[in-house]
Amino acid sequence: MNFLPKSISRLIDELSRLPGIGPKSAQRLVFHILKNSDTRIAELGEAVSKAKEGVLHCCECFCLTSEVPCSICDDEGRDRRMLCVVESTLDMLAIEKTGEFRGLYHVLQGKISPLDGVGPDDIRVAELFARITDEDSRFTEVILALNPDLEGDTTSLFLQKKLSVLLPTVEGQDKLQVSRIARGIPSGGNLEYTDDATLIRALSGRQMLSD
Amino acid sequence: MNFLPKSISRLIDELSRLPGIGPKSAQRLVFHILKNSDTRIAELGEAVSKAKEGVLHCCECFCLTSEVPCSICDDEGRDRRMLCVVESTLDMLAIEKTGEFRGLYHVLQGKISPLDGVGPDDIRVAELFARITDEDSRFTEVILALNPDLEGDTTSLFLQKKLSVLLPTVEGQDKLQVSRIARGIPSGGNLEYTDDATLIRALSGRQMLSD
Repeated sequence: MNFLPKSISRLIDELSRLPGIGPKSAQRLVFHILKNSDTRIAELGEAVSKAKEGVLHCCECFCLTSEVPCSICDDEGRDRRMLCVVESTLDMLAIEKTGEFRGLYHVLQGKISPLDGVGPDDIRVAELFARITDEDSRFTEVILALNPDLEGDTTSLFLQKKLSVLLPTVEGQDKLQVSRIARGIPSGGNLEYTDDATLIRALSGRQMLSD
Repeated sequence: MNFLPKSISRLIDELSRLPGIGPKSAQRLVFHILKNSDTRIAELGEAVSKAKEGVLHCCECFCLTSEVPCSICDDEGRDRRMLCVVESTLDMLAIEKTGEFRGLYHVLQGKISPLDGVGPDDIRVAELFARITDEDSRFTEVILALNPDLEGDTTSLFLQKKLSVLLPTVEGQDKLQVSRIARGIPSGGNLEYTDDATLIRALSGRQMLSD
C-alpha cells in the first residue's frame, strides 16, 4: 500500500504495535482520526505525548499516581489493618471500583514469570515485606489478589510461603493472616459452559451454608 | 477513579472516543503505552499529531494520497476503461490488495444516508458523473463496489438509476455498462450459519455452469 501518504502509514504502524490492535483495526482507527478536525487531532497527539507527565509511583503502595503518597495511602479513613496485594494499578482500580474494600493496597508492578525472566527481585516483593515487617505496621491480614493464571498462581504461592516463614518472627504485632481471593463460577456464569479448572476450584472452595 | 494522574485519565478519555475502543480497552492501552520509553511515547504522540501532514485528496479519484494525482490515477498501465466506485480509501485499499483489478477507482468519501443527513450532494457523486461524461473519458464499465448494507444499497440504487438516465446521452463514447460486485456466501463460509438475506442473494445470483 505504498501509495498511502507516509504520515498515515506511519500512524498505522505505530497503532498496530499496541496490544489488541491488529493492522486492520489500526487502519480503521487512523481513518477515523483523520476525519477529526486538526485541533482534535492535535489534542489527541498531545494527550499521548504527555501521557507520562506528572505520573509518579506512590512511595508506599507503588501504584501510579500524581501525588506521593497516593490519595489512598494518604487517606486516614482507610482500614490500615488490611493489605491487598495486586499486580498492577489497573487491578487496584478494579477492586477500588467495587467500593467493597476499605484497606490499603500494595502494587507488585508485575508477577513472577521465569519464562519472561521476571523473578521476585524484579517486582516489589522486598517492599511488600518491608511494609509488613515495619515497626509501625498495623496489618492483620494480607489478601493476595493476583490474577488466576500460571504466573499469578506462582507469585501467590511464593508470597504465601515467604510470608509464612517471615511472619511468626515479627514481634509486638497481632498475628497476621494471609488470604487469597475466592475462585469459582463468576456471577451470571453458567455451569454448563464453565471450564473444568474453574469448576474444580468452585467445588473445592465450596462454602458451608448450615452453620 | 479521581486518584489517577490527570495525564492518564485524559489519555483514557481521548482513546475511548475512538471507534471500537471502550473505557476498559482504553485503560489497557494507556497502561501499555506507559510501559514504553519516553522516546517511544513521544514518537507515537508525534505520529498522531502529524497524521494529516501531507495528506491530500486525489483530484481525480478523491482517495487520500500524498501526491496529486495519486499513483493509481497517474499510472499509465492501468485499464482506463474500468471505473470502480467505492465508499472510502480503505475499501479501495482492500480491492487493490487483491491485485485482481487493474482499472481506476472513484472514492465517494461516504454513502447516501438520509438518517445521518447525508445526501448525494454531500458525497463525490457530481464528480463521478463529471468523470464519466468527460469528453476524454474512455470508461466502458462502472463497477459499483459499495458495502452491502442499507446505505450502500441505497447509494448503489441511486447511482444505477442516475447512470442509466445519463449515459445514453453521452455521445461519441462506447456504450457504458454498470455492474455491481457479487453478493453471496463468502469463501470458506458455511451455508448452515449463513443468514437468510445472504442465502437469498446467493440463490438469486446463481451462475449457470452449463454454457
